[in-house]
Amino acid sequence: MKQAPSDRSRIRRVAENARYDSATLHAIIDAAYLCHLAFADDKGLHSIPMACWRTGEHLYIHGSNGGRLMKQLAGGAAVCISICHLDGLVLARSAFNHSMNYRSAVIYGRFEKVEGETDKRAALAAFMDKLAPGRQAEIRPGNEREFAATTVLRMALAEAACKTRSGGPVDDEEDLGLAVWAGVLPLAQVHGQPQADGDGYQAVPAYVRGWA
Amino acid sequence: MKQAPSDRSRIRRVAENARYDSATLHAIIDAAYLCHLAFADDKGLHSIPMACWRTGEHLYIHGSNGGRLMKQLAGGAAVCISICHLDGLVLARSAFNHSMNYRSAVIYGRFEKVEGETDKRAALAAFMDKLAPGRQAEIRPGNEREFAATTVLRMALAEAACKTRSGGPVDDEEDLGLAVWAGVLPLAQVHGQPQADGDGYQAVPAYVRGWA
Repeated sequence: MKQAPSDRSRIRRVAENARYDSATLHAIIDAAYLCHLAFADDKGLHSIPMACWRTGEHLYIHGSNGGRLMKQLAGGAAVCISICHLDGLVLARSAFNHSMNYRSAVIYGRFEKVEGETDKRAALAAFMDKLAPGRQAEIRPGNEREFAATTVLRMALAEAACKTRSGGPVDDEEDLGLAVWAGVLPLAQVHGQPQADGDGYQAVPAYVRGWA
Repeated sequence: MKQAPSDRSRIRRVAENARYDSATLHAIIDAAYLCHLAFADDKGLHSIPMACWRTGEHLYIHGSNGGRLMKQLAGGAAVCISICHLDGLVLARSAFNHSMNYRSAVIYGRFEKVEGETDKRAALAAFMDKLAPGRQAEIRPGNEREFAATTVLRMALAEAACKTRSGGPVDDEEDLGLAVWAGVLPLAQVHGQPQADGDGYQAVPAYVRGWA
């Protein structure tokens, strides 16, 4: 990732919350199972939630060969991707100073197709490893038909901006004496109890035992 | 919301998961604090996370008058909005049949400015009521300067599609005997313990006491 923002990725509003370093960007992508993908076709603009993962300086997505989306994206259409983790509601003493705590990333670029069986299988294995480390060796891998039906795309993390906010409300000095509760109502994504399918007699892997 | 999808909102992939009814759309928006907004300007496509709320058949956003974004959107630019709640990772017995449980909405349209002091104040109060019911009456309301600095936009929920998945993995018949754990690893957004700002001597409102 470039250290300096481009004209379109530079954050203007509340610019002190902007981050342009790779570590921040990587952490935001790695904490996300989904991104929101904006692209345009002959029907107009679209915003679509997509599963995503990262390896090195690329963000990956996958989908069905048969779909219009993968064809459009593999053709090198311009895209913009956003990810946002919401960490809390920030309740200030005035309506105007209310805010949210979050970690967000906006990434500009174009996808390229991951070609070659080795690279494509490695990319899909990396996705599985993100979902459930070690699971790829336990399951039935994709057969020729399934493998051929799947498109894997990647985009360089070359033009991106992150924006994050944390901490309590920032009130105007003259509002600090108001008799109103102020603070943060935290939000977090948590793991629930795994729900086994079928007879449940199979050995329970570490990533399932340790999930909740 | 129309009962029939438009050409661009009709879901083709796994079409049995598509929903086009208002109740599903409203529930997905109401459960979200954020949406992801796709729009285009002279620098290209953008995807931006934005706070959102709903009243009736409109989705609302707000922002600073000074920003390019609000000016662009208030001018009637075409937009597409997506929201996705991720409910779990679905682990199947084959790599190919892995999936996710989710509730998503994609909404097409154009924003219009909420004009008139009464309507604009009512819209902002509805947003506060979503964040913290009753709080609007406790805090310092927006003064003339703050109110004038804020743009409120709304978009009709006239062209939208939802897609949802729930339940366990759907495996191929011949994979059901494989000795591998299968099931769902649930994900959920939860509320954490409220963090008071300042001396904490203020009365704690019901929406704070009941948060976690």
